[in-house]
Amino acid sequence: MDFKAELKKYQEIVEKELDKYVRKDKCIEETLNKSMEYSLMGGGKRLRPILVIATYQLFKNDIEKCMPYAVAIEMVHNFSLIHDDLPGIDNDDFRHGRQTNHKKFNEATAILAGDGLLNSAYIVISEELQKSVQEELKEKLKIFNEFSLAVDRMIAGEYIDTEYEGKEISTEYLDYIHINKTGALLKLCVRMGAILGQSSEEELQELSNYADKIGLAFQIKDDILSEEGDEKILGKPVGNDKKRKKCTYVSKYGLQESKQRLEKITQEAIKSLDKFGEKAEFLKELALYIQNRNK
Amino acid sequence: MDFKAELKKYQEIVEKELDKYVRKDKCIEETLNKSMEYSLMGGGKRLRPILVIATYQLFKNDIEKCMPYAVAIEMVHNFSLIHDDLPGIDNDDFRHGRQTNHKKFNEATAILAGDGLLNSAYIVISEELQKSVQEELKEKLKIFNEFSLAVDRMIAGEYIDTEYEGKEISTEYLDYIHINKTGALLKLCVRMGAILGQSSEEELQELSNYADKIGLAFQIKDDILSEEGDEKILGKPVGNDKKRKKCTYVSKYGLQESKQRLEKITQEAIKSLDKFGEKAEFLKELALYIQNRNK
Repeated sequence: MDFKAELKKYQEIVEKELDKYVRKDKCIEETLNKSMEYSLMGGGKRLRPILVIATYQLFKNDIEKCMPYAVAIEMVHNFSLIHDDLPGIDNDDFRHGRQTNHKKFNEATAILAGDGLLNSAYIVISEELQKSVQEELKEKLKIFNEFSLAVDRMIAGEYIDTEYEGKEISTEYLDYIHINKTGALLKLCVRMGAILGQSSEEELQELSNYADKIGLAFQIKDDILSEEGDEKILGKPVGNDKKRKKCTYVSKYGLQESKQRLEKITQEAIKSLDKFGEKAEFLKELALYIQNRNK
Repeated sequence: MDFKAELKKYQEIVEKELDKYVRKDKCIEETLNKSMEYSLMGGGKRLRPILVIATYQLFKNDIEKCMPYAVAIEMVHNFSLIHDDLPGIDNDDFRHGRQTNHKKFNEATAILAGDGLLNSAYIVISEELQKSVQEELKEKLKIFNEFSLAVDRMIAGEYIDTEYEGKEISTEYLDYIHINKTGALLKLCVRMGAILGQSSEEELQELSNYADKIGLAFQIKDDILSEEGDEKILGKPVGNDKKRKKCTYVSKYGLQESKQRLEKITQEAIKSLDKFGEKAEFLKELALYIQNRNK
C-alpha cells in the first residue's frame, strides 16, 4: 500500500466534507463564522476524522454513514486548539504555520469561535440523529453519549495540564494528562468507527487498545517534536514547552527514553490489530506515521 | 397566587436538582470540578430552568420528565456567564455579589470550566436520550436539535455584542444582539417545556411569542439595571456598560423610553398567554417579575 497516497486521499475526502459545514452565507455574525472557518479549515493533518473513517472501513464501505461523526470530532478538536492557544492558557501566536485564531482576529472572537465549534459538533450530531431510523438509534445514542464523555475527559486533561505547568509532575499525573487530554478523543474516533461499523464486542476492545496505544504514541511524539522538531515544518516555534516549564514526556524521561517508549508503544499498537489481517494495513501504517511524522 | 412564594419553591426544586449533577468525587481534576460548581451553584435566579418547568406544567404535572432539560439549559447559561466575564470579553470581576470565576480560580481554569459546563449540558441530554422510549425519541431529538441551534444563536449574539463594543449601533444590530444573545435561550426554555408537554402547534406558537417578548423585556431590564441598579443588590458594579461604551437599549433610547418599551413589551407578553387562562398565572407573573426585578 502506498500509505502516503492513501492518507492524502482520506485528507481530501475530509476537507471536502468539512467544507460543506463552513457557513458561507452573508450574515451579521459572519466574522465569527470566518473565525470558525479559519481554524476548522486551517490545515491540520485530519488524523481524527481519518481514524473514524478508516476504522469504519474495517467493517463497512459506505463511508458517508460515518462522515457526520468524523466532522463532529474534527470540530471538537479544533475548538480545543483555539482555546489552548489563548493567552489565558498556552499563549501561542502560531499554529500550522500561521497566526493563531486570537492573533488573527481577537481574543473575544477566538473564545467564542471555540465555543461555536464545540457547539457545532453537537448541531451536527443532533441533525444526524434526527435523520436516523429506529434500528440505528440505539447505537447512535450510545455514540452521542460516549462523544460527550470523551470531550469531558479532554477538557479535564487540558485542565490538569494547565494546573501543573511549571511544576514537578508524577508519572500518574503525566499519564492522566495524556490519557485524557489527547487519548480520549483519539479513542473515541476509533470506537465511533467500530460501533457504526457494527463491530463485535471483542473487535471493539481490540480497537480500543489500538487507540490507547496510538493516543499515547501521539502525545510522546508531540513532546519530542516540541523539543527537537524543525520549526519551519512544524509551523510553530520549538522550545516553548521547556520555556514554560511544561510537564512533558521529554521533560520527565529525557529524549532518548521517550523515543524508546514511543517505539515500544507503536509496536504494541500494530500488534493489537493482528486479528484484522490485511484490512488493517492502513491503520498499522498510521501508527508508524504517528511515530515518524515531523509535524 | 403568591408569586414570590411560588418562585422560591421553583428555585428550591432547581437548586436541589442541579446539586445532583455537581461532581463531588475526589479526583485528579477536582479543582476544575470545583470551578464548574462555583459558577453553576453560584446563586442565580434560575429563571431559565424555571421557565422550562412552568411551561411544561401548563400541560403536564410529572415535572421530573423535564428536569434534565432544565438542568442542561442552566449549565449552558452558566457557561456563557463564565466566558462573558473573562478578561478577553467583558472583563468583569464580580457577579452575583462575589468574584467571577477567573478571579476566584484563574483564567485557564475559567475558560475550561466554561467549556466543561457547555459540554456537560450535552452529557445530560445524551443520557436522557439514552433512557428514553421509542415513542418519545422523535420529540426529544427535535429538542436536542433546537437546543444546539439556540446555543449557536446565543454565541453569535454574544459575538456581535463584542464586535460592536464602543461603536455606534443600528436598531437592526441591537435587536439582533437581544434576539440572539439572550432571547434564543429563553425561547428554547419555553419551547422545550411545551414540546415535552406535548402542546399543540398553536400553543407552541403562542408560547414562542411569549418567550420572544420576555426575552426582549429581560434584556431591556438588564440594560436599565446596569445603568441605575443598586450595586449592593445587583452584586456587581453599575456603570460598566457606559464605561466600556457598550451598546445597550439605554445607550440607544435613553432610560425613559427604555422603561416605556419595557412596559409595552411586558403587557404584550402577558396578553400572548390569554388562551391558557388561569394555568398561565405563574408565567404572567413571571413576565411582571422580569420587568420589576432589581437584580
